[in-house]
Amino acid sequence: MSQAVVFKLLGRRVRLGLIGGAQGSLIGPVHRTAARLDDCFDLVAGVFSSDPERSLNSADAFGIKRGYTDVASMIEAEIVRADGIDAVAIMTPNDSHYEYAAAALDAGLDVICDKPLTNDYDSALALARKAHDRGRILSLTHNYSGYPMVREARATVTGGEIGALRLVNVRYVQGSLSRPVEAEPDKMAPRNKWRLDTAKGGKSHVLGDIGVHAHQLISFVCGRRIAAVLADVGPSLPGRTAHDTAQVILKFDDGTRGQMLISKVATGAQNVVSIEAYGEDGGISWNQAEANDLRVMRLNRADEIRTRGLPSLHPHAQRGTRLPTGHPEAFFEAFANIYTDFAELVAARIAGAEPDPLAQLTPNAWTGVDGLAFIDACLESTATRTWAEVVYEDDRF
Amino acid sequence: MSQAVVFKLLGRRVRLGLIGGAQGSLIGPVHRTAARLDDCFDLVAGVFSSDPERSLNSADAFGIKRGYTDVASMIEAEIVRADGIDAVAIMTPNDSHYEYAAAALDAGLDVICDKPLTNDYDSALALARKAHDRGRILSLTHNYSGYPMVREARATVTGGEIGALRLVNVRYVQGSLSRPVEAEPDKMAPRNKWRLDTAKGGKSHVLGDIGVHAHQLISFVCGRRIAAVLADVGPSLPGRTAHDTAQVILKFDDGTRGQMLISKVATGAQNVVSIEAYGEDGGISWNQAEANDLRVMRLNRADEIRTRGLPSLHPHAQRGTRLPTGHPEAFFEAFANIYTDFAELVAARIAGAEPDPLAQLTPNAWTGVDGLAFIDACLESTATRTWAEVVYEDDRF
Amino acid sequence: MSQAVVFKLLGRRVRLGLIGGAQGSLIGPVHRTAARLDDCFDLVAGVFSSDPERSLNSADAFGIKRGYTDVASMIEAEIVRADGIDAVAIMTPNDSHYEYAAAALDAGLDVICDKPLTNDYDSALALARKAHDRGRILSLTHNYSGYPMVREARATVTGGEIGALRLVNVRYVQGSLSRPVEAEPDKMAPRNKWRLDTAKGGKSHVLGDIGVHAHQLISFVCGRRIAAVLADVGPSLPGRTAHDTAQVILKFDDGTRGQMLISKVATGAQNVVSIEAYGEDGGISWNQAEANDLRVMRLNRADEIRTRGLPSLHPHAQRGTRLPTGHPEAFFEAFANIYTDFAELVAARIAGAEPDPLAQLTPNAWTGVDGLAFIDACLESTATRTWAEVVYEDDRF
Amino acid sequence: MSQAVVFKLLGRRVRLGLIGGAQGSLIGPVHRTAARLDDCFDLVAGVFSSDPERSLNSADAFGIKRGYTDVASMIEAEIVRADGIDAVAIMTPNDSHYEYAAAALDAGLDVICDKPLTNDYDSALALARKAHDRGRILSLTHNYSGYPMVREARATVTGGEIGALRLVNVRYVQGSLSRPVEAEPDKMAPRNKWRLDTAKGGKSHVLGDIGVHAHQLISFVCGRRIAAVLADVGPSLPGRTAHDTAQVILKFDDGTRGQMLISKVATGAQNVVSIEAYGEDGGISWNQAEANDLRVMRLNRADEIRTRGLPSLHPHAQRGTRLPTGHPEAFFEAFANIYTDFAELVAARIAGAEPDPLAQLTPNAWTGVDGLAFIDACLESTATRTWAEVVYEDDRF
Repeated sequence: MSQAVVFKLLGRRVRLGLIGGAQGSLIGPVHRTAARLDDCFDLVAGVFSSDPERSLNSADAFGIKRGYTDVASMIEAEIVRADGIDAVAIMTPNDSHYEYAAAALDAGLDVICDKPLTNDYDSALALARKAHDRGRILSLTHNYSGYPMVREARATVTGGEIGALRLVNVRYVQGSLSRPVEAEPDKMAPRNKWRLDTAKGGKSHVLGDIGVHAHQLISFVCGRRIAAVLADVGPSLPGRTAHDTAQVILKFDDGTRGQMLISKVATGAQNVVSIEAYGEDGGISWNQAEANDLRVMRLNRADEIRTRGLPSLHPHAQRGTRLPTGHPEAFFEAFANIYTDFAELVAARIAGAEPDPLAQLTPNAWTGVDGLAFIDACLESTATRTWAEVVYEDDRF
Repeated sequence: MSQAVVFKLLGRRVRLGLIGGAQGSLIGPVHRTAARLDDCFDLVAGVFSSDPERSLNSADAFGIKRGYTDVASMIEAEIVRADGIDAVAIMTPNDSHYEYAAAALDAGLDVICDKPLTNDYDSALALARKAHDRGRILSLTHNYSGYPMVREARATVTGGEIGALRLVNVRYVQGSLSRPVEAEPDKMAPRNKWRLDTAKGGKSHVLGDIGVHAHQLISFVCGRRIAAVLADVGPSLPGRTAHDTAQVILKFDDGTRGQMLISKVATGAQNVVSIEAYGEDGGISWNQAEANDLRVMRLNRADEIRTRGLPSLHPHAQRGTRLPTGHPEAFFEAFANIYTDFAELVAARIAGAEPDPLAQLTPNAWTGVDGLAFIDACLESTATRTWAEVVYEDDRF
Repeated sequence: MSQAVVFKLLGRRVRLGLIGGAQGSLIGPVHRTAARLDDCFDLVAGVFSSDPERSLNSADAFGIKRGYTDVASMIEAEIVRADGIDAVAIMTPNDSHYEYAAAALDAGLDVICDKPLTNDYDSALALARKAHDRGRILSLTHNYSGYPMVREARATVTGGEIGALRLVNVRYVQGSLSRPVEAEPDKMAPRNKWRLDTAKGGKSHVLGDIGVHAHQLISFVCGRRIAAVLADVGPSLPGRTAHDTAQVILKFDDGTRGQMLISKVATGAQNVVSIEAYGEDGGISWNQAEANDLRVMRLNRADEIRTRGLPSLHPHAQRGTRLPTGHPEAFFEAFANIYTDFAELVAARIAGAEPDPLAQLTPNAWTGVDGLAFIDACLESTATRTWAEVVYEDDRF
Repeated sequence: MSQAVVFKLLGRRVRLGLIGGAQGSLIGPVHRTAARLDDCFDLVAGVFSSDPERSLNSADAFGIKRGYTDVASMIEAEIVRADGIDAVAIMTPNDSHYEYAAAALDAGLDVICDKPLTNDYDSALALARKAHDRGRILSLTHNYSGYPMVREARATVTGGEIGALRLVNVRYVQGSLSRPVEAEPDKMAPRNKWRLDTAKGGKSHVLGDIGVHAHQLISFVCGRRIAAVLADVGPSLPGRTAHDTAQVILKFDDGTRGQMLISKVATGAQNVVSIEAYGEDGGISWNQAEANDLRVMRLNRADEIRTRGLPSLHPHAQRGTRLPTGHPEAFFEAFANIYTDFAELVAARIAGAEPDPLAQLTPNAWTGVDGLAFIDACLESTATRTWAEVVYEDDRF
């Protein structure tokens, strides 16, 4: 029980300040619900919008005690309070992540941030270095790796149960940009407006928004790095300039083949996130629509359906489980697992204790940096029409 | 947004006192997580165990501010506080439900109680009358009707979309009593100990524990009453006396046929809860393992898969939805829907406002009373080896 | 390979005469396709209709060399030919099965007959005795037991892999009588006309038409007899007299509990045939919609998905398999397995050889007799509103 | 009913000579079973092996009347018989397809041939030209397009039901080469021996063996041509030289994006063949494991599950259907649909009649030629590490 871990270390919940997620936001309630789920946090402060009035109104509406009008004020006020926040959660448009995260780290706060870490590799790297220099936690809400059965998949693949890995396939497809929504800007959802604006949303919408999830998922499950990509990234609708689809053939650093299909023009596909990985002795297959199950395949033998909640699962899968089998858990619970990992890391950091090694597997600043390196490689490959290497920062201090 | 409704009416969250669910309990964390999920409650007080020390320790462990050593003390202390609890949530063994619920209602508190309401029809009826007489809310956590797609099923069936109803089939099967656990009492899970003890768990374990869920599910979805049953209820293992299986053929009051299979000896079945209903123009099918989908069938036409989150769903399904399609919700979210309905009813009661009619569809005292009438009929049919009528209390004030 | 077995024994295919299945028939092409599938039969003769002209026209249309105008003529002519038929396949309305099967057996021919064997217990028993007395094969096309994974289910259950059996549930539901088709006799499908006519179709349409399949399936998979039933059989639509639904609670002779839902008013259900069986150590689950898979469950362990074609399956499942895994087989192939078993039995009988014991597991006259005993018990239970015993003929010579 | 069509045109079945498929062959029984299924062919002659004795023994074992020792003899003998064969079916190793097909066409026989048509583009083109010059039918057993619901997918996509097409994804993955089988040549299955030998099996095993199926499937369903590919084709196991995996990003001639994953190292994947296609108004999804269903998706609306057998399907899907919904059809039936199309084309050709336009959609010589063009482009792209155009022969006479 994570709450017990946190209480044991701190004698209280982690105190969290929220940045972003005003009334009407889609992702705001997800973060707040996830943060509350395991009761490891007190949500005590927040700046919910760059519009001061909207920010304060949202604090009232959400029952958050200490609403602020801007991030600097919140940090300034909170760090001097005896009951001030320990950490901030950032859920603002991508282009502001750097500024808010850097300010929080500089003030000695831990940070949990929505993905992508930033819109460009350099600023992501700068954040990673800052987190290291300040000795603070920087977690990223790559929520798909919060699913227990994704963790079981990772343990199965990296533990050698399917033998030498040979082939991996990931899909992340949805239909949110099936129609030419840009043609009628007045009707666009606000979140699409800033996301499709490259200044705010990043140079490749589809890669920054969902491609980094696919990148983190494949890297996490396979436990190795993508070395090179052969990609075609761009728009699929006539007249569109924003990237809506990324098609990627890839090789891992050990030669394993991989493939990805990432798209927002898959009309009717309901946020399909799936991975299948094959080794010489077996394979695994998982998709979010049946999130509580992991199929483990073996040549010429019956498949095995491992289910969240079984006592025989790997410890990393057990860790993120609250209910017995047959009582399904889903998106919020997976998202909460990232928050709860973060709570344990923060509590351990404050208490000067060693956190659970499993909590340390949670996505962090380097996950974010690597995701931006992947984006850069995919765009380079698209431009040059040939293979591009993914260039990683190897000096991880 | 339910939180907005509650804040609008009360200017704050509903203050909840917890009864039961000490450290180590299975159902306790479910209730607390569900209560927290939509942020409609402050969990401010609790009596977590009949053992005073264990109760106070649990309060500390859970970070609940006001721990008490017994229910009477909690009620006495809370009702005089300005910031005292508005309501209690009861998650103790069945035989104590009457006492605690009655005490809370008598003190003017609203009550949300785990099922079954009580272990016998008369005490359930007495609670229903008391709730009515005191003008207080009494909700029951029949969580399966909290699933949005179960609510869609109800709207589809009762709205006439599948035509005149003809046949309904419900399964609630699991394997928790597959093995003769009674043979080794020392190794029994504590929750099985009291549950299999008829004095605490009720005269028919399988009916009281999961049969009432099946009864509520079929009644809720079909929107009509079971008039008569032809049942065989009892143990399935040699030497067992506790009821582990209930097989029921039934007729609704309008002549519609129904059937139920309720069992705890379905080894390997992972808490399977499913319903299929057929009318002259179509049918519906839902099962918990694919909780986000409802299959709507029609003769000689393509089936329709309705998914939680679609804008075209009925309002009652929309109401219990937090995330867009493709971002699955599951058990906790469904359970939370019952808590959130309760929060709205409590807030409206306190504010003297009319609650949302959809919130009023949530399981209440009468659901509990009817469930006990159903149990009695099934046991009578088993004993007499022929059809038995379900005798309902029609004086519902 | 069954063709090799037949050729080895006979040096040729089994010569088959067809009875019934004229142009426009639904079941006729199924029988002929099934008989052809493994190339164990030459379809050389036939009487396709009681209308002589229609019979001969059908023979021409089907390319069957020797068309006849009536069954007696066919038998008389064929048994004196050097290349005459070895066996007949009967696919006529139920009320004629006895006459045609008896005539064929009396003439020394083997018989494969559509189910139910006859419309009443006594004539079924008479046929079983006649087959025995004449030393001829009498097979019944209970095609669902031809599915390899149903055979795997049987081997799993009867081999003790799931431990002492405790609970079985079977569904056979479809929507073919969802609407009051009798109200417009002019528009009725011809096959419904005779089937709903109790003189031709038997006293209980739903039990005779699909209930006997459910009875054979549950008996076959569990390898034990139903001892007693608590049933409700009848029509579900106002004004209908024909039975469209049978709801059955049952006990096997060893006390195992079972349940069945058999209905033709399940609007939109596409001929759903499913079975789940639970023992103390595990369970199995199969449904026709995923016919190539058998789920094997075990308490607190990962489920196993056994697939047709795996080398690890039981021999009885292997026997009915033509293609490797991933190349699905379906209804025709299962039906063909019954025909092919019959071909092997006929070839062995003619050659005076001992047939493969696995071929002898195919449904036979006693399966038919027991099915009629089951029908009688269900109807008795419905009439008396209490349990009825199934009375079996134990003198099986 | 196709048999009726053939009989009406010819007054008899099409007489077929078999080439290949001796005892022990995997694909031989598939062809013969498929040819027999709808009773449109008499299998009267055959050369089953290049070993004369084995050929004659196989003829005896299969009950085929006229066994021959070589193809030339069969053709010579049959074309002068009054009851000689009308057509040949070729199921030999790839490198012999050209010789046998050319000889048959030159003798005035129609040909149905296993895929790939040949091992190289030039000989495939030569066969296409010869078939045209001789006025004979040349069909290819691309059996996946024989599935009714693949035909429904094609009608849905090409009929505009999902709007302007934007994205297509195909998977054809299996695990037959998961292990380094080449390391132990003595234990290799005979069919792997010739297939992995580039002289007999073609220059790219995976593309020639299953890639052409994926190419035909995507082209057939989308009704347009692949214009260019960005591919990586090769081995996945250390030390292997044979191609086991092809990863392809592609653009159709109208700019639609596509992607393919084709592999034989997907350990445990049971011959997974799937396609998903997305347009601006909707999408479709099909996979062989659930071959009787086609999912039709639409943005913000409930999905539709269209099922084989529904009267509302497109005529091309209806055409390949024998059984009502709920009575599943599978691999053999789909394969038979190709044979039956061929039978109708042959009968019409002989009778000088116009065949059903739907029969003309069956894979033909040009399908084969285009498949080889696709292989060449994929290999060119792999070698040059950049996009390659697919060069089509446009002079199709």
